[in-house]
Amino acid sequence: MPQAVVLELVGEKFPLYPARYAHGLFFSLLSRVSPELAQKLHEEPRKPFTLAPLTGIDSEGATSQGTLRLRLTTLDDGLFAPFLRTLLEAAPEGLPLGDRPYRLVRVVATREGHPLAGAASWEELKKAPRREKATFRFLTPTVFATSKPGGRTRYTPLPDPRLIGSSLLDKWQVHSPFAYNPREVAALRELFELDLEVAGFRNLRFHRVQAGKGFFPGFTGEVTLRLWSQSLEAQEALGRLHAVAFFSGVGAKTPYGMGLVVPL
Amino acid sequence: MPQAVVLELVGEKFPLYPARYAHGLFFSLLSRVSPELAQKLHEEPRKPFTLAPLTGIDSEGATSQGTLRLRLTTLDDGLFAPFLRTLLEAAPEGLPLGDRPYRLVRVVATREGHPLAGAASWEELKKAPRREKATFRFLTPTVFATSKPGGRTRYTPLPDPRLIGSSLLDKWQVHSPFAYNPREVAALRELFELDLEVAGFRNLRFHRVQAGKGFFPGFTGEVTLRLWSQSLEAQEALGRLHAVAFFSGVGAKTPYGMGLVVPL
Repeated sequence: MPQAVVLELVGEKFPLYPARYAHGLFFSLLSRVSPELAQKLHEEPRKPFTLAPLTGIDSEGATSQGTLRLRLTTLDDGLFAPFLRTLLEAAPEGLPLGDRPYRLVRVVATREGHPLAGAASWEELKKAPRREKATFRFLTPTVFATSKPGGRTRYTPLPDPRLIGSSLLDKWQVHSPFAYNPREVAALRELFELDLEVAGFRNLRFHRVQAGKGFFPGFTGEVTLRLWSQSLEAQEALGRLHAVAFFSGVGAKTPYGMGLVVPL
Repeated sequence: MPQAVVLELVGEKFPLYPARYAHGLFFSLLSRVSPELAQKLHEEPRKPFTLAPLTGIDSEGATSQGTLRLRLTTLDDGLFAPFLRTLLEAAPEGLPLGDRPYRLVRVVATREGHPLAGAASWEELKKAPRREKATFRFLTPTVFATSKPGGRTRYTPLPDPRLIGSSLLDKWQVHSPFAYNPREVAALRELFELDLEVAGFRNLRFHRVQAGKGFFPGFTGEVTLRLWSQSLEAQEALGRLHAVAFFSGVGAKTPYGMGLVVPL
């Protein structure tokens, strides 16, 4: 079941590279669960989790200098429970972010506890209402990486409807037990290419942020997409992808804090 | 020689649909020059002029309620001189915008007179300095129209680097005496697809505006593109297209006030 939790960590001061340190902490905890699982996950091109420091988002983190809120989402049923258990086991020793220990003071797992926490089963996501319009609020910088000939990568820091649709479809296909068959996938990609338009955007901002080893461009802001197709299957797909975005994020580098999005 | 002039018109009150009325005025004046020319131009899918009311742009038009500044650019050498002559001949009777007459009080043709006026020869545009980066300030809502199967049209109100590059290349090809040959065009299109990225944007805003018979989405704001190619030909092309944008505008509906852009 896709899960989103918000962890509140308190240390002496705010970590220098929260996203990178959080990524390291996540993998070190995962190694305790199972070194094989950690290794396997590390090598997977499409990771079944996202991890984002919430500082700077909606005045989060403004509470105190040493408080860091981390949002973790998991898309893989086998990942959440063992990770959480290990996290709680390790917490009394202090959780290292960079070379400093942080104290875990809260784990929020419901939307009542934090608007960015919560859970939904794949069955629920599959039954998400059909949509002709879908609004997304991109809270952390979001970027699309496209492979180019010669092994290079092109980055698109714009809310391109086709790239939003196809990124979410990729994530759905890899992680959902209700993946579409190849014929359906091809039809949906074509629809996103032809019939998905930007119906509006607000507060669109450009950023350049560190994510993992490099710096990447990205956008934040609120974007409404409109699907011009009358196909019920396409509208159903847009509904599902809109719903899963809360857990999967959008675009590249979501394990490093990019692409955190709230479907509205 | 590509020309940009700013016309200052004064009437009793500000016209209700300045872009549409200006379009009508332009064609009625053109019919006086030559009915055949007006008819021919009306039918051309890629018109050799742009026409935009400047109200609301950089506090233009704030001077007085009844003052309208219209910016006209021409890309066709045969169009500017006869149009201007007819405009000046007709001016004493009052120029109709909608059903009201307006008085032509000023024609500004140089950058010293108005930052959006000026001229440059095709030779000068051809010799524009090579560029790896190009910044554009989109002053009026800009949109790209892409044909879809079935004769429908998709609108992209985003500063997509490929669409900016290919729109300017289209305009260059149609209007410039120094058009690229088909092989060069294909190579440039591929480069714009693969090697042109958004390096940053500022003040990006979404709009929905009337242009001609319909309403269209569009964006305004400042966008910097970066060309990753080391090809000198590609950098030369980006320099030329950046320079011609001042006269050609970018994207669709430029004869109706959309896509007015200043290369920075």
